[in-house]
Amino acid sequence: MNTNPWHLQPPTYAEIEQAAARIDGVLRETPLLESERLNRRLGGRLLVKAEGLQVTGSFKTRGAWNRLSLLTPEERERGVATFSSGNHGQAVSWAAQRLGISRAVVVMPSDAPPRKIEATRGWGAEVVLYDRAQEDREAIGRALADEQGLILIPPYDDRRVVAGAGTLGREIARQAERIGVKPDVLLVNCSGGGLAAGCALAWEVLLPDSRVWVAEPVAFDDTARSLAAGKRLANAPGGRSICDSVLAAMPGELTFPINAARLGGAIQASDEEALGAMRVAFEEFGLVAEPGGALSLAAVLSGRVPVEGSCVVAVLSGANVDPALFTRALAD
Amino acid sequence: MNTNPWHLQPPTYAEIEQAAARIDGVLRETPLLESERLNRRLGGRLLVKAEGLQVTGSFKTRGAWNRLSLLTPEERERGVATFSSGNHGQAVSWAAQRLGISRAVVVMPSDAPPRKIEATRGWGAEVVLYDRAQEDREAIGRALADEQGLILIPPYDDRRVVAGAGTLGREIARQAERIGVKPDVLLVNCSGGGLAAGCALAWEVLLPDSRVWVAEPVAFDDTARSLAAGKRLANAPGGRSICDSVLAAMPGELTFPINAARLGGAIQASDEEALGAMRVAFEEFGLVAEPGGALSLAAVLSGRVPVEGSCVVAVLSGANVDPALFTRALAD
Repeated sequence: MNTNPWHLQPPTYAEIEQAAARIDGVLRETPLLESERLNRRLGGRLLVKAEGLQVTGSFKTRGAWNRLSLLTPEERERGVATFSSGNHGQAVSWAAQRLGISRAVVVMPSDAPPRKIEATRGWGAEVVLYDRAQEDREAIGRALADEQGLILIPPYDDRRVVAGAGTLGREIARQAERIGVKPDVLLVNCSGGGLAAGCALAWEVLLPDSRVWVAEPVAFDDTARSLAAGKRLANAPGGRSICDSVLAAMPGELTFPINAARLGGAIQASDEEALGAMRVAFEEFGLVAEPGGALSLAAVLSGRVPVEGSCVVAVLSGANVDPALFTRALAD
Repeated sequence: MNTNPWHLQPPTYAEIEQAAARIDGVLRETPLLESERLNRRLGGRLLVKAEGLQVTGSFKTRGAWNRLSLLTPEERERGVATFSSGNHGQAVSWAAQRLGISRAVVVMPSDAPPRKIEATRGWGAEVVLYDRAQEDREAIGRALADEQGLILIPPYDDRRVVAGAGTLGREIARQAERIGVKPDVLLVNCSGGGLAAGCALAWEVLLPDSRVWVAEPVAFDDTARSLAAGKRLANAPGGRSICDSVLAAMPGELTFPINAARLGGAIQASDEEALGAMRVAFEEFGLVAEPGGALSLAAVLSGRVPVEGSCVVAVLSGANVDPALFTRALAD
C-alpha cells in the first residue's frame, strides 16, 4: 500500500486527460516532425516532437499550468515558490502571471543561463540565486515557502505536475495515430523524471505495447543506476555538463517508482553528442534545441537507441539556449 | 482581356483549394505562433507563420508539389528542369524524387549557400551552376529544357506554382479563424512575387478586408518601384544582400499584375535588420530562419509596419541557412 501523501501518489490517466483539457487553448499542440534524410540514414522512422516551440520554450509549462490552475483562490492570494534550473522557473513565472497569482518566487542556480534568469524575471517572478555546488535548492525553496507562506510548486514531485507533463505523451500518441504510425519507443530527456513518468503513465494506456526510455547526461546517470539498483541513487558530486536543464541530484520520490515499473531503460549521451544533436535539429528541422533538450536525439544519433526497422519518437523538450552555446553547437 | 498563355494567367481560388487538397497529407500544416513578450513590445498582436518547418525547409515545396503533381505520365518520363537560388530547387528536387519523375535538373547560382546545393543534389537532382553576375539563369534553364526535352518548372511564373504558394495564405487564414483572430495585415517575403500573389488571391476571398504586404531587401526593391511605376522594373545590377533567397531580378510576368492590383505595398529591410530578426526568431520562438525568410519579421521589428492596436501575420518563409551565417545573426 502506498502510504505517501496524496500529492506524492501517481496521477491516474484521468488526471492526465483533465490536465489536457485545462491546457487546451492556453498552451500549444507542438508539431511532430520527421526528416526523410534522417530516416534514410537511420534505416527506420524517427519522429521528433518539437516541444521547444511550447509557450516559454519548454514542456515545463504543461505541468506548471496544470498545477497552478488547481490553486484555490486563497492559495493564489498567498503566492507560489519553486526551485528550478530555469525552465520550470520560467513556466511557473509565466503561469503565475497569466493566472493573476499574487507572487512567484523562483530559486535558481547562480550559473543558470542568463536568458533563463532574465525570462523568469520577465514574467514577473522574484528570482533568488543560490550556489549549485554548495547549497540545497530544495531546502532553500521549502524554507522560503514556509517563512513567507507561499505554496511550494515542486518541479516534478507532485502528481499534478506529472499529470501536466503526461499531456505531452498523450499528445504524441494522438498525433502518431492521426498520421497512422504506431511508435515502438518514446525517448524523453530525464532529470528528476517528471516528463518520463507522465509520458509512461499516458503510454501505458494509449500505447501499451510501446516503451518509454530516457536519455540523461553521462555524468548524471542517476536514473540508469537507480533503475539497476531498484532504489533512488544520487549523482556523484562534482559532475559537470552543459545540459543545464537535466542536472537534478537524483530521481524524484514520486517519479522514481512510476518510472522503475514502466521505463524501458536509461541511455547516456555526452555533451559533445548533445551539441551534435543540436546541430542536426538546426539542419534537418529548422529547430532550436537546448543541450538538455537534445539528449534524446543525441541518444538516437549515437546508435545506442536502435531505430532500424522501427519507429522511435524523440522529444526535443526545450529551446532555451544562450546564443554563445548555440554557436558552439554550430561550430562543431 | 488577358492574352497571356494559360499558365501565365492568374489561378482561381478554386485552384488554390485544389492545390491544398493535393498537399494535404504530403506536406505539413506549419504552426502559427506568437510571443507574449513581442506582443507587449509591439503593442499589438504579431503572429508568426513557421514555414521554415515545411518539408525541405521552405514554402517552395507547396508550389513545386502542386505543379509536379499535375505532370502527365509522359511528362514525368521526360523529366523536369528549373532555375533557383536554392529553395525552389530543393523543393523541385524533393517533389520529383517523391513522384518518381525520371530526372530533375536545377540551375543554381555558384554562390548559393553550400547547404542548398548539397540538399538539392541530396534529393537526386543534377545541379548546373552559373555565375549570378554574368549569366541569365532563366535563359540557361530554358535552353537546357529545350535541348534535353525537359519540362521547365518556373519558380513563380506559373499559375500552378502560384496556386501552391497560395495554400500558405489559405492555411494562415484558417488557422487564424480557429483561434478567433482576424489579421489586418499579412506580410510575406518577396522575390519574384509568387508567394505574395498566391496569398493575395487567397486572402481576397477569405479575408477581403485585410491586406497583403511584402518585404524585400533594400538593394532589391524592384517590387516597391514597380508598384509605384505601375510596370515591372528591374533591380539595378550589382546590388548585394545576404538574403540569397529573395534576389530575383524583377517581379514576375504572371505575379506582377496580380500583386499590383492587390498588395498594400512593399517595405524594405536591411541585411542587418534581417540578422536581427533571425535572432529574435531564435530567442522568442526557438525557430531557425534564413535571412530572406526573416525579412517580413525584420520589417515588423523595424517599426515600418505598425502593429500597434492591430494584428499582423509575418511569414518566416524558410530555414535553410548555413551555420556560419546563423552564427553571425547570434553574434549581432
